[in-house]
Amino acid sequence: MGKKKRTAIEPTRQEDYPEWYQQVIRAADLAEVSPVRGCMVIKPWGFAIWENMQATLDRMFKETGHENAYFPLFIPMSFLEKEAEHVEGFAKECAVVTHHRLEPGPEGGLVPAGKLEEPLIVRPTSETIIGAMFAKWVQSYRDLPILLNQWCNVVRWEMRTRMFLRTAEFLWQEGHTVHATEAEAREETARMLDVYATFAEEYMAMPVIRGEKTEGERFPGAVSTYTIEAMMQDRKALQAGTSHFLGQNFAKAQEIKFQDQHGQEVYAWTTSWGVSTRLVGALIMTHSDDDGLVLPPKLAPRHVVILPIYRNDQERSEVLPYCESLRAELEGLSFDGAPLRVQLDDRDIRGGEKNWQHIKRGVPLRLEIGPKDLAQEAVFLGRRDTGEKRSVPRSEFLANVVSLLEEIQQNLFAQALKLQKEHSHWFDDWDAFRAFFTPQNPERPEIHGGFAMARFVDTPAVEEKLKELKVTIRCVPLDAEPKPGKCLFTGEPTDRWAVFAKAY
Amino acid sequence: MGKKKRTAIEPTRQEDYPEWYQQVIRAADLAEVSPVRGCMVIKPWGFAIWENMQATLDRMFKETGHENAYFPLFIPMSFLEKEAEHVEGFAKECAVVTHHRLEPGPEGGLVPAGKLEEPLIVRPTSETIIGAMFAKWVQSYRDLPILLNQWCNVVRWEMRTRMFLRTAEFLWQEGHTVHATEAEAREETARMLDVYATFAEEYMAMPVIRGEKTEGERFPGAVSTYTIEAMMQDRKALQAGTSHFLGQNFAKAQEIKFQDQHGQEVYAWTTSWGVSTRLVGALIMTHSDDDGLVLPPKLAPRHVVILPIYRNDQERSEVLPYCESLRAELEGLSFDGAPLRVQLDDRDIRGGEKNWQHIKRGVPLRLEIGPKDLAQEAVFLGRRDTGEKRSVPRSEFLANVVSLLEEIQQNLFAQALKLQKEHSHWFDDWDAFRAFFTPQNPERPEIHGGFAMARFVDTPAVEEKLKELKVTIRCVPLDAEPKPGKCLFTGEPTDRWAVFAKAY
Repeated sequence: MGKKKRTAIEPTRQEDYPEWYQQVIRAADLAEVSPVRGCMVIKPWGFAIWENMQATLDRMFKETGHENAYFPLFIPMSFLEKEAEHVEGFAKECAVVTHHRLEPGPEGGLVPAGKLEEPLIVRPTSETIIGAMFAKWVQSYRDLPILLNQWCNVVRWEMRTRMFLRTAEFLWQEGHTVHATEAEAREETARMLDVYATFAEEYMAMPVIRGEKTEGERFPGAVSTYTIEAMMQDRKALQAGTSHFLGQNFAKAQEIKFQDQHGQEVYAWTTSWGVSTRLVGALIMTHSDDDGLVLPPKLAPRHVVILPIYRNDQERSEVLPYCESLRAELEGLSFDGAPLRVQLDDRDIRGGEKNWQHIKRGVPLRLEIGPKDLAQEAVFLGRRDTGEKRSVPRSEFLANVVSLLEEIQQNLFAQALKLQKEHSHWFDDWDAFRAFFTPQNPERPEIHGGFAMARFVDTPAVEEKLKELKVTIRCVPLDAEPKPGKCLFTGEPTDRWAVFAKAY
Repeated sequence: MGKKKRTAIEPTRQEDYPEWYQQVIRAADLAEVSPVRGCMVIKPWGFAIWENMQATLDRMFKETGHENAYFPLFIPMSFLEKEAEHVEGFAKECAVVTHHRLEPGPEGGLVPAGKLEEPLIVRPTSETIIGAMFAKWVQSYRDLPILLNQWCNVVRWEMRTRMFLRTAEFLWQEGHTVHATEAEAREETARMLDVYATFAEEYMAMPVIRGEKTEGERFPGAVSTYTIEAMMQDRKALQAGTSHFLGQNFAKAQEIKFQDQHGQEVYAWTTSWGVSTRLVGALIMTHSDDDGLVLPPKLAPRHVVILPIYRNDQERSEVLPYCESLRAELEGLSFDGAPLRVQLDDRDIRGGEKNWQHIKRGVPLRLEIGPKDLAQEAVFLGRRDTGEKRSVPRSEFLANVVSLLEEIQQNLFAQALKLQKEHSHWFDDWDAFRAFFTPQNPERPEIHGGFAMARFVDTPAVEEKLKELKVTIRCVPLDAEPKPGKCLFTGEPTDRWAVFAKAY
């Protein structure tokens, strides 16, 4: 057995990717399973990342003309039933409220009482309840467009859950808009996919493919579903955000009608779009390494942590003021339009352990400051993305820290893009396609596969054939030029092609 | 019949206060009842006020060392049962989830299916689920204190609902902390009551009395409950925020224990504290008038609205650029630490109607700009709090607008404080006390009463006697000096006194 480098996270990505993911979450103290089936507890460090995501997205939504509102958690069962595909899509995973109080049971303890006349569903998504309000609010073309967003929790009763990626309850935002024309609604759908892609690439440093979902993967009730798809380090795809053109389906089911400029009563056009705490999972799996979480500076709760090192009170009295003045100077600098986020960590914990805590939590820059650094007017700088450690003159560090954070942000994006490019291939041949998605040793399903591009026809037969490989059609890229040829799966002539992958 | 001044809101406060309240909400487009029993829809203008409240409170929580986290929406029924008083307090108003899917019923339509082994309660508050996590996280005194906050929705099945003040689902924040000592937990309870009082007075411009609740009004399971109580314009009290010292009650019920510095295993001390969207209702009832909503500038979604006035394209081409440059200059100014929030409203609506929309929505300052104002380098300024309207030189307005907003903020506080002082009285006599709380004409329950201060002993007999007047003990003020004498209700000797009022 060869010598193995010790890593903070065990197992490593190569050894067991799914377990590595859980261990990164644990080591970074991001979240924990809760005693409630399928529900997680998001701990402060994990929630701070989500808050940074929220703040950025919220600003982008407002800049594109949207306002926030809040609609009820509960949806009457009859509302859900109005759109046939929609209820079909969600009926199997609904939390159902049937009673409105508890009372002492015949055998002691409490039992549900006060049965509701109509059961209430805990919202899995809010098209139907928001649509009911739209039907009241939309009377004339002058009332349009309505551009709303809601930050909230939703519940989809999942049987197999995984932290951040798939939980029974999750946090998200759902945009809901109503328009007078099809063109405007389609434009909105495209605009919000763009917002998501920009956010993923510029803030999460996560390259994405923008594309349209095929029929089998569409949102229940949508005419078209658009997606951004990212490649994780195990080369699986992760759907990171979706934007749905709902056509007039929900407008017809819910009577969202208005008088147009010619006095005609017509149905409106609606859209919806959402991203969730799943993005935190995507962030973890895109950048983290075998020492734990790696955070792009734009979303990191802290940019810099300062770790004072001293052996006695005398040293402490010298080192601490140096650290404090350093913190003050750093906090006077600005990155991504806001002051640098700096922590001075003077907790009474062994230096090595403390340093590793911040490595595992993904803080972009660490400064260890001891008497020697003081004497040299220097800082001992640790960079999380490259692992580089070196002594830097204090003045040089202060002059360069903002561009260094920008460099880290770019570097993380470049690394992720390189991985995506390296593992994206065109296929004209079924055997090669199958080999691409087949682990070399089925007993040990190490990392394999990636994004496969191939011609296809959009039929259930193709999806059936993909099932044996556990591969799905991720999307038809928006910029996909037609490529005349044959469907890889059925041999039928086609010029359409798509991206295929195993997926979360 | 005398000549009546026309007001935008009908009825007026004097005519029918409860209905006036509903009409202000409607005229300002703050919220609407939803098709789901007891749940409201918070519309963009109302939600923007809540967002401003959230942003300020969140900053104050973080400045006092708290971090945000997120815990499950659902609480297993058995968790709720652990603290006897707690479950007793909430059992009658719980939304209970009993099934996790829907399936086609025997008579068509859908029916709940997939019965849960243990029913889940939609959180009415999260002491029990958060306590279960605290029990895992707290092992040693080194783990303490834990200072968390959660922004979320909660559900309490209310039979009689009123928008913002009492709804089945509402939005709130709940702080939950664990401490090693009683003193620290009591200090935290007091600190957070202070944060709430500061927020109410400095941001909401709403004077409050800080006090302790009597036994009958305590949070179920708390040792002490502290409150801030405000007087609405109908002289009723509104409990605006509470901070609970939970002692070791929840720690014992949930086994939150730790090893102290001497190696002893001991129970921890916990607190919880919360404010909700009820504060929006308090804001409405504190400042609004018979023309609609009045907003303190610090919480107003917009500080200034600019209303261009023109009769033709020629005038438009002159007026609009003037308005736009005015907006740009205003947005360059800073109020309460952030840029002024300015709207240029060029919608195609009659000028008078548009102006009234902004009056009814409570925008602090309105600027009507027509060709005449342009010619005079002036703005026609309307001030929402006083109703004052006058032409002001543009340069003078720009030089004074920030101090004008500060003046409005102060003026609203002063007005509310004046009302509170005018209607707060000391009582030594039961007949006078009863008369204070009795409408002159019971057929027409116009505005009456206020805050009555009187000596009391904390017994159920007193509360019983108060019931006939529909009056409750609001609190024992924190700064209440003992005043030896007799209980107003029982005649027993006592030096304790409290504030009594009818309340929301």
